Amino acid sequence: MASPTVMKTDIDLKLAGELAQQLRVDSVRSSTSAGSGHPTSSMSAADLLAVLVGRHLRYDWDDPANRANDHLIFSKGHASPLLYSVYKAVGVVSDDELMSGYRRLGSRLEGHPTPVLPWVDVATGSLGQGLPDAVGVALAGKYLDEAPFRVWVLCGDSEMAEGSIWEALDKASHYKLSNLIAMVDINRLGQRGPTELSWDVETYRRRASAFGARVLTVDGHNVAEIDRAMSEAADITGDQPTVILARTIKGRGFSEVEDREGWHGKPFPPEMAERAIIELGGERALVVRGPRPDKTASGGHAPDAGPAVTLPVYAVGDKVATRKAYGQALAALGARTDIVAMDGEVSNSTFADEFAQKYPERYFEMYIAEQQLVAAAVGFSVRGYRPFASTFAAFFTRAYDFIRMAAISQANIRLVGSHAGVEIGADGPSQMALEDLAMMRAVQGSTVLYPSDATSAAALVQAMADRDGVVYMRTTRGAYPVLYAAGDAFPVGGAKVLRATDDDQVTLIGAGVTLHTCLDAADQLKADGISARVIDVYSVKPIDTGTLTAAAAATGGKLVIAEDHHPEGGLGSAVVDALTGAGRADLTVRHLAVAELPGSGTSAELLDAAGISAGHITAAARDMAR
Amino acid sequence: MASPTVMKTDIDLKLAGELAQQLRVDSVRSSTSAGSGHPTSSMSAADLLAVLVGRHLRYDWDDPANRANDHLIFSKGHASPLLYSVYKAVGVVSDDELMSGYRRLGSRLEGHPTPVLPWVDVATGSLGQGLPDAVGVALAGKYLDEAPFRVWVLCGDSEMAEGSIWEALDKASHYKLSNLIAMVDINRLGQRGPTELSWDVETYRRRASAFGARVLTVDGHNVAEIDRAMSEAADITGDQPTVILARTIKGRGFSEVEDREGWHGKPFPPEMAERAIIELGGERALVVRGPRPDKTASGGHAPDAGPAVTLPVYAVGDKVATRKAYGQALAALGARTDIVAMDGEVSNSTFADEFAQKYPERYFEMYIAEQQLVAAAVGFSVRGYRPFASTFAAFFTRAYDFIRMAAISQANIRLVGSHAGVEIGADGPSQMALEDLAMMRAVQGSTVLYPSDATSAAALVQAMADRDGVVYMRTTRGAYPVLYAAGDAFPVGGAKVLRATDDDQVTLIGAGVTLHTCLDAADQLKADGISARVIDVYSVKPIDTGTLTAAAAATGGKLVIAEDHHPEGGLGSAVVDALTGAGRADLTVRHLAVAELPGSGTSAELLDAAGISAGHITAAARDMAR
Repeated sequence: MASPTVMKTDIDLKLAGELAQQLRVDSVRSSTSAGSGHPTSSMSAADLLAVLVGRHLRYDWDDPANRANDHLIFSKGHASPLLYSVYKAVGVVSDDELMSGYRRLGSRLEGHPTPVLPWVDVATGSLGQGLPDAVGVALAGKYLDEAPFRVWVLCGDSEMAEGSIWEALDKASHYKLSNLIAMVDINRLGQRGPTELSWDVETYRRRASAFGARVLTVDGHNVAEIDRAMSEAADITGDQPTVILARTIKGRGFSEVEDREGWHGKPFPPEMAERAIIELGGERALVVRGPRPDKTASGGHAPDAGPAVTLPVYAVGDKVATRKAYGQALAALGARTDIVAMDGEVSNSTFADEFAQKYPERYFEMYIAEQQLVAAAVGFSVRGYRPFASTFAAFFTRAYDFIRMAAISQANIRLVGSHAGVEIGADGPSQMALEDLAMMRAVQGSTVLYPSDATSAAALVQAMADRDGVVYMRTTRGAYPVLYAAGDAFPVGGAKVLRATDDDQVTLIGAGVTLHTCLDAADQLKADGISARVIDVYSVKPIDTGTLTAAAAATGGKLVIAEDHHPEGGLGSAVVDALTGAGRADLTVRHLAVAELPGSGTSAELLDAAGISAGHITAAARDMAR
Repeated sequence: MASPTVMKTDIDLKLAGELAQQLRVDSVRSSTSAGSGHPTSSMSAADLLAVLVGRHLRYDWDDPANRANDHLIFSKGHASPLLYSVYKAVGVVSDDELMSGYRRLGSRLEGHPTPVLPWVDVATGSLGQGLPDAVGVALAGKYLDEAPFRVWVLCGDSEMAEGSIWEALDKASHYKLSNLIAMVDINRLGQRGPTELSWDVETYRRRASAFGARVLTVDGHNVAEIDRAMSEAADITGDQPTVILARTIKGRGFSEVEDREGWHGKPFPPEMAERAIIELGGERALVVRGPRPDKTASGGHAPDAGPAVTLPVYAVGDKVATRKAYGQALAALGARTDIVAMDGEVSNSTFADEFAQKYPERYFEMYIAEQQLVAAAVGFSVRGYRPFASTFAAFFTRAYDFIRMAAISQANIRLVGSHAGVEIGADGPSQMALEDLAMMRAVQGSTVLYPSDATSAAALVQAMADRDGVVYMRTTRGAYPVLYAAGDAFPVGGAKVLRATDDDQVTLIGAGVTLHTCLDAADQLKADGISARVIDVYSVKPIDTGTLTAAAAATGGKLVIAEDHHPEGGLGSAVVDALTGAGRADLTVRHLAVAELPGSGTSAELLDAAGISAGHITAAARDMAR
């Protein structure tokens, strides 16, 4: 039987205990009703959440957009029944929605939390990501917003095996993020059995402490202990992040499953759920509210997209690397206070240092920790900033899970990868991005840009700033001639036709360095009496289907596509997918790409060895034009 | 002037100091000669390597294939001048090769080490990978080979910021890898400035110790201290990995650059190099050999591909999940002692537990640490085993940099990802692999398999065991009807035609779950009087171009391709790339894929919502056949 609805604020510890039981009951009910979900992983953390939400989390549930609110991130996203039961307990989700919506088609109460819910900052469910994302939120709070909100993160113990957790704690202590509090639910059991460290809280303590955290250890089912630890953690005047290690029992409160293997990610069958609810003291209908931000508390500085920006200007014919143009354009964009930049310890190669020198207060060095690099960008996006994160293009592969999840988080982040392809030369294949275009194109809702000259690169950097979703730009190591005059327009989704006549026999398609080899090839072909159209596909996704279909139509479907990338999923795929997607396609395609494993050499040698130099393009086009 | 060539074995400490100077000189000479490279990062670690190679590394340089040899892995791969100078010092690379080959086209002395050299186990250069790879080698040594070799790893201090380093130390201590010795060259300077921890050796010590290592601290330029530490580390009777923390000076030995910023990754100009060589005492031509494996020392057990394996048999029409068939086939393959399996704490979902239960001695639980999961597989491959690593397909995105590097390492690894696509249902998008096919196809030399039924899954698991390179299989969560009879052949690179008549009007192409929706669609179309050819593209890379071109020719170029994957880089791209790559292609393609962000729901609901259900395929084909 449900007790009558009450609205309590700043509840006492006894009521917190009651609330915890309600959260357990509702976790059981919702998951059983859905026929899937993780009740036992929710039950272990219910006391932590009851005390937090009832007594410490400063949150105006009626105004999730209030910038003074604390943040609450479930890094263990599979405990979604607990999170959604919290939402019910604070009165923002109805019992009916919880019971009929959870994990159902079209519901916002998805299997793992996503920001389709207004109280969710980031999608979680790939473990080891919520805490790194939170580092970004806390960085924004401490250094940009300069606001007193706290970032509370619920971590699972299994995810402490992810390296990304340690990248996060390392950066949290490096940046003295006293506004970050990680609560680790040490319930000893993972999906298939015991965790690596089981209840060895002392080892967790030594590790977190060595990584610079203030560590507090509690019995995770003792609300008084939890309360004391949270009171201590809530004081953010220090210079360390806090880690609360909570020893808990999986399935706590229901003796049939407590601390038992075999119950991860399994809802209880209805009869069993009934027994659980009885043992937990029955259904309750508490509605509780914890503290709100002080009326005087400010959300701090807000990001601002003004003032207007003046981009750097390049003279046609000058040799300028697109990575250099990236740095210079980013430094120009820095006039906007919503622009934030970070880099993975290679800012003198990516040229993010141009921004760092001009706006050190909005530049964050992430050192060699690419997962945290991307996660920090996601966190800045949560606070409304427009982050640019850069490293060698090859090393974004390190963060692909974070990039994929950023799309599900509906984060607005900009990633800029330099040193792409065999063009980099002597450093060899470990440093050559040859799969980045494929990787980035496959991200839901992504934008993929690949400029060939400094003018277009600078214009696209500006376009990136205001484009939502995951926006990627690939830049090139070497300096190549500026092709476009200042002021030329480069809309995302466009392409440029650089050579065209009414008698074109073949179309040459390139981007980045291969646009230059295509132009050289067109010159060679012209000397042979063959007229070639040349297209700069600076926007790989979305792609300019109109320009491509027109060119294909004009040149009898004969295309040579050259790219400094493996053959799969990059520029060639983008072009062919666009043409075949546009209707009946009658094509003869020669796709030149890096098929074999490259070694070291000069740029010119490696472009030629890979078959994407002007000579190879010329030969392919000549064959075709015959 | 070069001194006369001498061949010394088991050198004393004084000669080790001389050798260190030679390694520095040769690092300077080779990088200056190449015009690129990292001399200062080599000079800091020269004393470590001189003592190691001269006195501790047990290695028969004339027989790198000797399984009793120690392993030497440069996790800081950019110190390649040092590594190659070591090869010169032990007499396996000539001074001429070092000076004229380093970083040149076609040379095996690439910018970062790769296994084109017989003494290199794994490609490095993406930081934070050598140590995790070494964990795999050490696991093989301790648990499978049961051989006394040691695995020595040179780490940089910058890469200690990578989470993967901590995944590696965590697993090394969990598995008591006393045969693993990490030497950290703490030279304080990264690429663009000081490292995060600078010379804070105490913090490194606390971290490594908390992660379970025996930690030894040395002055990295004091050969006697180094020697004592290595003597201690070389005793592998304990149950902990060893970390030697060496405080060093970047550019050590050349006063113009010692401990100076701005000299990372820069060769010295020729005149400067001359001054460096003079200050370092001039060129030397020492040839030294350290200890070799004891004559009595064994390389331990060797992996063996026998005996013949009997695969599980499935009855046509029975409903069996391909992930289940994976587990059962893997358990059958376990009769071969070269087969090793590991999983990221989800073995009861991937069904790797079928193998784990039968062959616990060859199963390694990697917990939730996907980077280390893949790195361990690479390490097992180094020792000649045939590893299978499994987790949810979505979570291989976490390890993409490791997968990319595995290809450069020429490692032979098998990755099996379960729970792909929206088909998984209620868990939501964080758990849905929707970019894995694109990601895996773009890996150099990779194989990508995606079976639709249990019979083909089992056959392909067997084929994977003997296939080299990075071999990926995507499995499906749900149970679908067995389509093929036991004994049917499923060669890698093949496809199956499941429906075909002489009057086919359209071709339906699917794999995995969408093959079943294509078959349902074909039945619906038949009822409408439309004859559809249906193709099972179980081998996505390599792909069966012949079968596809024949089908396209037979059906007027009309194709419907359905895949449970984002539209970019997956099955659709593979098919279209194959057809356009095969010559003139006249195609009308309807490509059905998961374009929007999915939520939760049932499999059937989500397949339909994504537009890849039988109904959508039928509608697309009907339009086309008109």
